Amino acid sequence: MRTRFHQGLDLLKQKLLTMGGMAEQAVERAVEGYRRRDGELCKLVLDGEPAINTMEREIDELALDLLAMQQPMAIDLRFITAVMKINADLERVGDQAVNIAERVLHSLDLPEVELPADIPRMAGVARDMVRRALQSFIDARPESAQEILKMDDLVDDMNREIHRAMIAHMKQVPDALQQALDALLISRNLERVADHATNIAEDVIFWIKGADVRHHFGMNAVQP
Amino acid sequence: MRTRFHQGLDLLKQKLLTMGGMAEQAVERAVEGYRRRDGELCKLVLDGEPAINTMEREIDELALDLLAMQQPMAIDLRFITAVMKINADLERVGDQAVNIAERVLHSLDLPEVELPADIPRMAGVARDMVRRALQSFIDARPESAQEILKMDDLVDDMNREIHRAMIAHMKQVPDALQQALDALLISRNLERVADHATNIAEDVIFWIKGADVRHHFGMNAVQP
Repeated sequence: MRTRFHQGLDLLKQKLLTMGGMAEQAVERAVEGYRRRDGELCKLVLDGEPAINTMEREIDELALDLLAMQQPMAIDLRFITAVMKINADLERVGDQAVNIAERVLHSLDLPEVELPADIPRMAGVARDMVRRALQSFIDARPESAQEILKMDDLVDDMNREIHRAMIAHMKQVPDALQQALDALLISRNLERVADHATNIAEDVIFWIKGADVRHHFGMNAVQP
Repeated sequence: MRTRFHQGLDLLKQKLLTMGGMAEQAVERAVEGYRRRDGELCKLVLDGEPAINTMEREIDELALDLLAMQQPMAIDLRFITAVMKINADLERVGDQAVNIAERVLHSLDLPEVELPADIPRMAGVARDMVRRALQSFIDARPESAQEILKMDDLVDDMNREIHRAMIAHMKQVPDALQQALDALLISRNLERVADHATNIAEDVIFWIKGADVRHHFGMNAVQP
């Protein structure tokens, strides 16, 4: 039988997953809005921001309630405080989506140009990182978290490559300077999404290192 | 007589202030390194990063110890979890300083140009925000936190103005494109420093709203 406390922990996990889904969807919509020059999709991202902020507060309040409910064991303490940190990172993933959506909305009247910057591909990796980081937390698997740190290097490389290519493009095609700068800045937004995923992965590793997660979750596959 | 728990809270406060000082100094050095084109100063920022990361972990561990030490009252619970969130923001302020320092180090071989972008002034406001946000937390004063939200609007305006001016400059002086882009990106780094200060201020307001801070700290001046 689950105690009220453990039911609360389950609900906390569930809400964090929902929060992750909302943040990831915001990034997906913003980047799709950029790719298709779709203002309506970008507006959906802006309209969705309050719901993400509300969910962030709900998760924090539930976490505080659980901390106050009983003397939590060290393992639960680390879990709950990790949720609060991950929660803050997910909210900022949503902020990056809003930044991208706003940039697209401001640039819709510029002529469409072909740019050597594969933003959708980079966005795919960054979103994948967020999803996997969250999953590594839910599954309490530090190995998955380690993989995310490697993916972050890939995203950093992509960002550097887009940065280099866009500067070259700005010099060669001054008429498309604003469009190339937009791509450069959106690339940086996505690099920050990947950074937040990395923060989450580091929180997972920190949490698991400091608590005997294997024992608590009955897992055998996890290496120290 | 102070209990061991309350001595721990005092130590936590002290360490968070030290952390804030380290992060603020990193921003100061990076921007001064940019202004004076001083690579040594920028290297100091990079060399200082591990100490900031170590301090972040120390603060988190102390916070967890305090949460585990006894059944904290709701007010202490909110205080300790707020410390953990603010701690993460301060570490990211340090990251922004590192980003600026790395950009300066990569650009030292470019010719020096005059740019219509007052980076040091913007940095002054952003650093001031970090310091005040931390002070509003230490003093448990939500009014001060509210002021920081207003300062953030000012920094956003400065960032927009520098953004606009640097794009115009890139178009007019293509030979200084890289330097203008550097200024634009450093301006965005500083805007993010201000965002972290704003996050801290919001955490202060959230913390105080949810707990009867006035009573706990024996303050009368605080408005609900």
